[in-house]
Amino acid sequence: MSNQIDKIENEFLEYVKKMESYNEALSLMYWDLRTGAPKQGIEQRSEVIGMLSSDVFKMSTSNEMADYIEQLSGSKDDLSEKTWKTLEECKKEYDRNKKIPAEEYKEFVILQSKAESIWEEAKEKADFSLFRPYLEKLVETTKRFIGYWGYDGNKYNTLLDMYEPGITVEVLDRVFGELREKIVPLVQQISESANKPETTFLFEHFPKNKQRDFSLAILEQMGYNFNAGRLDETVHPFAIGLNPGDVRVTTKYDESDFRTAVFGTIHEGGHALYEQNISQDLIGTPLCDGTSMGIHESQSLFYENFVGRNQSFWKKNYDLLKEYASGQFDEISLEDFYRAINESKPSLIRIEADELTYPLHIIIRYEIEKGIFNDEIEVKDLPQVWKDKYEKYLGVKPENDAQGVLQDVHWSGGSFGYFPSYALGYMYAAQLKNAMQKDLPHYDQLLEEGNLLPIKEWFTENVHKYGKLKKPLDILNDVTGEGLNAEFLIKYLYDKYINVYKLQ
Amino acid sequence: MSNQIDKIENEFLEYVKKMESYNEALSLMYWDLRTGAPKQGIEQRSEVIGMLSSDVFKMSTSNEMADYIEQLSGSKDDLSEKTWKTLEECKKEYDRNKKIPAEEYKEFVILQSKAESIWEEAKEKADFSLFRPYLEKLVETTKRFIGYWGYDGNKYNTLLDMYEPGITVEVLDRVFGELREKIVPLVQQISESANKPETTFLFEHFPKNKQRDFSLAILEQMGYNFNAGRLDETVHPFAIGLNPGDVRVTTKYDESDFRTAVFGTIHEGGHALYEQNISQDLIGTPLCDGTSMGIHESQSLFYENFVGRNQSFWKKNYDLLKEYASGQFDEISLEDFYRAINESKPSLIRIEADELTYPLHIIIRYEIEKGIFNDEIEVKDLPQVWKDKYEKYLGVKPENDAQGVLQDVHWSGGSFGYFPSYALGYMYAAQLKNAMQKDLPHYDQLLEEGNLLPIKEWFTENVHKYGKLKKPLDILNDVTGEGLNAEFLIKYLYDKYINVYKLQ
Repeated sequence: MSNQIDKIENEFLEYVKKMESYNEALSLMYWDLRTGAPKQGIEQRSEVIGMLSSDVFKMSTSNEMADYIEQLSGSKDDLSEKTWKTLEECKKEYDRNKKIPAEEYKEFVILQSKAESIWEEAKEKADFSLFRPYLEKLVETTKRFIGYWGYDGNKYNTLLDMYEPGITVEVLDRVFGELREKIVPLVQQISESANKPETTFLFEHFPKNKQRDFSLAILEQMGYNFNAGRLDETVHPFAIGLNPGDVRVTTKYDESDFRTAVFGTIHEGGHALYEQNISQDLIGTPLCDGTSMGIHESQSLFYENFVGRNQSFWKKNYDLLKEYASGQFDEISLEDFYRAINESKPSLIRIEADELTYPLHIIIRYEIEKGIFNDEIEVKDLPQVWKDKYEKYLGVKPENDAQGVLQDVHWSGGSFGYFPSYALGYMYAAQLKNAMQKDLPHYDQLLEEGNLLPIKEWFTENVHKYGKLKKPLDILNDVTGEGLNAEFLIKYLYDKYINVYKLQ
Repeated sequence: MSNQIDKIENEFLEYVKKMESYNEALSLMYWDLRTGAPKQGIEQRSEVIGMLSSDVFKMSTSNEMADYIEQLSGSKDDLSEKTWKTLEECKKEYDRNKKIPAEEYKEFVILQSKAESIWEEAKEKADFSLFRPYLEKLVETTKRFIGYWGYDGNKYNTLLDMYEPGITVEVLDRVFGELREKIVPLVQQISESANKPETTFLFEHFPKNKQRDFSLAILEQMGYNFNAGRLDETVHPFAIGLNPGDVRVTTKYDESDFRTAVFGTIHEGGHALYEQNISQDLIGTPLCDGTSMGIHESQSLFYENFVGRNQSFWKKNYDLLKEYASGQFDEISLEDFYRAINESKPSLIRIEADELTYPLHIIIRYEIEKGIFNDEIEVKDLPQVWKDKYEKYLGVKPENDAQGVLQDVHWSGGSFGYFPSYALGYMYAAQLKNAMQKDLPHYDQLLEEGNLLPIKEWFTENVHKYGKLKKPLDILNDVTGEGLNAEFLIKYLYDKYINVYKLQ
């Protein structure tokens, strides 16, 4: 009997390995398309991508997969942990995909692709009315899918669970409520502060190749392994793990604003450290990946904000930056530089927001999505709802829909429930930092010495190596002894901004 | 009935398209591995490559493929030319792979991979005895495979046909005999010439990025389409067509010898022009590829030698080269430069040989392979046979086996019958040039004006666009009105070297 299970287990792992092989080939094509693939080959490449993606989709919903799930689901004790968790992932995927009638899923894929191109046009023309019928259809379809999938407590929970297993409206209402309540008055205080940092020197000419060299030096300092990765240029930066031995970072250079490349590279470098340090043992399974969008973002935001925007980090690296720059910082003290890169002011565009105001952009989107899927907000009212919330939370008002409800790509692809992960990652990061400091009490000193390896090692031991073996909230609980708690992020933001703006 | 055939035809084309999609993904992985893929990811990437290659192999020998071949083979008149030729390619592949017992093929693949790594070691140690047992086994296995495949006239013909359909020992004995007979005395005459070119200035420092810029300018002049390609750096240069809209060139930079990059890029650029200009209509079929190794090589050698080493080409481009170089050519006349880049002298290593002596390196390998597969030469005698032939044809003698019989990788991978294509390509190129000059009588003037587009267009019209729709000898016949003829290459070499060495 156990021999029989062993045999099925091995076959199942081979089957899954094949799916992962296709995924690795797909990842390389994705990276290539975004780092210089010749334009005229793109159409044909898309066909190849479509072919391989459809192979993976078919394998994930095949009768063969159904048989593996059926034959192995009762044998938890006979299976390795890796097999069992892999089976759970496959089952989740199978259920999600199988519950939607094939015809409706196909229509949805077509709708997605149309909606994305219409959204681009609508954003360019700042005209929500063009996009509205597509968004209405996307929402309507997603509501119907929630009907197929079922839900627990709140319909929106089903969407949240796709990106952040275990996170619910109940949890988010609590933590986002706390965040909003504490951040809004701090933003207000800062806008009234007389001690605003001087920032004009940030925007002087910094040659691209020098930005690249500095970015490489910082990645090296972070412990990014260049034998298992490379740095390339792109338009919308990302990090991508093909396997733990090949995790690539991409960045963008703006010669009038070095921050784009430097903080962008540190951010993507944080994602990359995660993927480089997942246990090799998980290669060939769906577990060889970040456990959730939020935990992934906790790693990138940790490095971007708690390392890259930390004063001790610049005590070590400011002179180095000056060496690569062409004189723009020569007359600027470390203190003034530090304050400049931590300027905070309310703005309209999420991806340009600073550390303090960023969570408010996310909270606005969360409240809107929750309203939509609980039938409290209608798509036709979105432009106005958006404007009202920006005015209320941030004190700014978009002049048009391109600066407002049309700014993000997510909804046009039918990705509802994704936004909260960004702010969750930030909260996770603050909680993890608090726990880390119990093991590494001289955290700031490590930064000042440029000794970032103990930080990477701590993350590897507590987060990275598990891949998807642990769920996001299990990681958080095992490390911090508690669930999601906004308090740590709030304390961090208060401490930092009181100092930067010399409040009180 | 015809409706039924239409249906099968469409299914067959879909099936083939899928195989080609996998091949395109494989090509991207191949390119990536050779242009900077992180080292630590290579092992896992090899698994992915193995998985996809085995998918393609299985599809090419599946029962489904057998059914298509059976169902469509009788319906030539009902099928499009594209489908019919695709079917022929698939059938050839199917027969070749199916005739070998699966177990023996598997053993052969394992042997290949072992032999390649042993060959590397043997070459490093200049010790043929290490490699000998593996080469014996490779030869023995290949002989057995020829038994399965059958042969026509000469056993070696079966191997030749794999790389150059239609070419036989009978043809090669004739043309290689003529070549050898005419080249050997010319080589002798040159070695006795008092007018040897001065070449020391070639080896001065030429910065890599400047070599790159010059190479890009020349690719542009050749008509290489940068919207359908890119130039990258690698160790062993190659060109690769993922599809006609994405054909990539790679090159290598030697800062003490600019010729490596410049002539290498022109050579690979010739291959790339072929792949960029295959008819779009053939995408998704095995016909979307060069028709043979030899015709492919005719394109690269045409550009490398008949364009890149032509005096008129340098009348246009020598000043440009001087701009990119750091003064090494400032005191050198065009005439002296031209003579230097056309220096000819017998050497031991094939890939370092000049235009004149190159065919002799190939003829030696041809004679040896033919001898082996006709049981006239034994593997154990190869080092001595090699030395004797080099002394006889080129007047040089390798000091050890690394400089001799171990220099090329081909045999270690079981690639017998491949070498002749290099010299065939050269002869094709000379014949095509002769035909081209009937349409473009002012060929040299075009080069002098930097107007290379008519040359590219002539090739597109007469060679490129057909892909594998035409067999190599059909292309030759349709364009030149005759079969393989060594005379044109011989005349070219005599004209050129009498001029360069001021003979008589």
